[in-house]
Amino acid sequence: MKKLINSPENVVHEALEGMVAAHADLIKVQFDPTFIMRADAPVKNKVAIISGGGSGHEPMHGGFVGRGMLDAACPGAVFTSPTPDQMQAATKAVDSGKGTLLIVKNYTGDVMNFELAADLVRADGGQVESVIIDDDVAVKDSTWTAGRRGVGATILAEKICGAAAEAGQSLAEVRDLCQKVNAQGRSMGMALTSCTVPHVGKPTFDLPEDEIEFGVGIHGEPGRTRMKLKPADEIVEMLMEPIISDLPYKSGDEVLLFVNGLGGTPQIELYIIYRKALEVAKRAGLKVTRNLVGSYITSLEMAGTSITLLKLDHQLTPLWDAPVLTSALRWGL
Amino acid sequence: MKKLINSPENVVHEALEGMVAAHADLIKVQFDPTFIMRADAPVKNKVAIISGGGSGHEPMHGGFVGRGMLDAACPGAVFTSPTPDQMQAATKAVDSGKGTLLIVKNYTGDVMNFELAADLVRADGGQVESVIIDDDVAVKDSTWTAGRRGVGATILAEKICGAAAEAGQSLAEVRDLCQKVNAQGRSMGMALTSCTVPHVGKPTFDLPEDEIEFGVGIHGEPGRTRMKLKPADEIVEMLMEPIISDLPYKSGDEVLLFVNGLGGTPQIELYIIYRKALEVAKRAGLKVTRNLVGSYITSLEMAGTSITLLKLDHQLTPLWDAPVLTSALRWGL
Repeated sequence: MKKLINSPENVVHEALEGMVAAHADLIKVQFDPTFIMRADAPVKNKVAIISGGGSGHEPMHGGFVGRGMLDAACPGAVFTSPTPDQMQAATKAVDSGKGTLLIVKNYTGDVMNFELAADLVRADGGQVESVIIDDDVAVKDSTWTAGRRGVGATILAEKICGAAAEAGQSLAEVRDLCQKVNAQGRSMGMALTSCTVPHVGKPTFDLPEDEIEFGVGIHGEPGRTRMKLKPADEIVEMLMEPIISDLPYKSGDEVLLFVNGLGGTPQIELYIIYRKALEVAKRAGLKVTRNLVGSYITSLEMAGTSITLLKLDHQLTPLWDAPVLTSALRWGL
Repeated sequence: MKKLINSPENVVHEALEGMVAAHADLIKVQFDPTFIMRADAPVKNKVAIISGGGSGHEPMHGGFVGRGMLDAACPGAVFTSPTPDQMQAATKAVDSGKGTLLIVKNYTGDVMNFELAADLVRADGGQVESVIIDDDVAVKDSTWTAGRRGVGATILAEKICGAAAEAGQSLAEVRDLCQKVNAQGRSMGMALTSCTVPHVGKPTFDLPEDEIEFGVGIHGEPGRTRMKLKPADEIVEMLMEPIISDLPYKSGDEVLLFVNGLGGTPQIELYIIYRKALEVAKRAGLKVTRNLVGSYITSLEMAGTSITLLKLDHQLTPLWDAPVLTSALRWGL
């Protein structure tokens, strides 16, 4: 295993130390229980938004903590759910009294631990709501997941709900908005290579040199099928078809097209993917009015991509455009 | 070779099509000769800044085209210098009459082709200055380079000179500033893995599973030595020592610390590198007042890192902080 680390057990702790040192203007980090929070939290008269999950998907979620997005993020060990005490402590630190929304990706450990955390917060008199993101159309059930997995729509929900919270919306409003983003978002991904979890020390899965994993999960969970490597354009067609037909999106819909790199895929390839995805979207009558291209939800050094479509409207578009100031996404500030 | 491409010969063209489709608010792309330019160029009464080089290092340079940074970028084939007609056409497109600065990384092909372009522009009556960046302390001469290679300081120069040009400085002032950034910046990198150039189809170099290339170039050029993989902290010590001692930086100096990923290195590892690099800088008495952490100068999917230190002062710091709006770097706008 070749990694720029000191020891597998210190990866997350040391990375967080480096992260807060680099971005002290934006974030603070607490350890034991561990969470990243906005430097200026709690923000008065604002619903707090917290997400979290296993580490190894950076910049998700810690890179999205800041003005206009998340108030806190709870990182677990690599590819391992954070524990309820992390979310409980984070909620206590960032809730200004207007309540907290937990945005949870649909993996069994995350769902259970966020639910336990919500119970603890409520028992303490806190107001908390949870929304589970399950936008991955690849498979129905999967390793670690009942139902669909939560992937790309998660960060779109974090951005959009963050803007709504910043604008003063209530907890119920921000929760409903998060459910709407999840309902209107669909994703699918594929991998060219596996990744290696530091404390495991060997690749999560084996993939022959001429094969790809189609519909892969962000922890390397199996997808729909293995197949021979194909040209990028064919891969994009195969990713877009189930995304577009699942919602279903309708001709004339305005959409956000998010092309994500899984970590080891060069930017130049992501633009090749974006080019074709845009063409397929147009052919389906969709109007791509917003986009995001980059490695935002990663699986360590995995090579591959995922595509997310989100149906936009007069409510969602201005919230997407609203200013955001985090280490991984920033505009308008 | 596993890549998300259609064919090696179309990689750059298709990526540029995707890039301009994604960022039409910021950039325009011209083909044959090929360059990326600011959507609003030429910008009146402003020195134009152009850079370029082989593709495969994204987001450098195309990702830095926009307000407050580059007016144009000329991409060659992967790891291959752009041709003089590209820089000539780009200069014609973006020069508002106040002259053009060419920022050139020190590789033999780039230096020759940018120089030829400068001659062509001058023959046409244009005002043009060139600055060659050679900040890599790893080796004296290298494959494709006489003298030191140009690496991390390049984008710092692009940002800082871009801000100065935006503020109305003259061509001579912006040129001098670029030379100063180069004089005050030092870099060094290392690789855990090779990368594969699409039209070559096999890894640029072979590296045993337990070895690293110390002092690697951004095209996979040999560095100082090969050695066994070490813990990240030891690698950082070994990268920082020649950087700090070369200038030499002095105790009390304010510096910008730039930790760069070469493409295949997860963000979590870059923060582990940053954490230690900051510690080493502090131990040397340096005051890290600005930083940049991310994959900004890449070598396709190569795993590895480079560290750049830039000595700051009352002139450089405000220019670094000035607003920038490009697809890869944006703040304050």
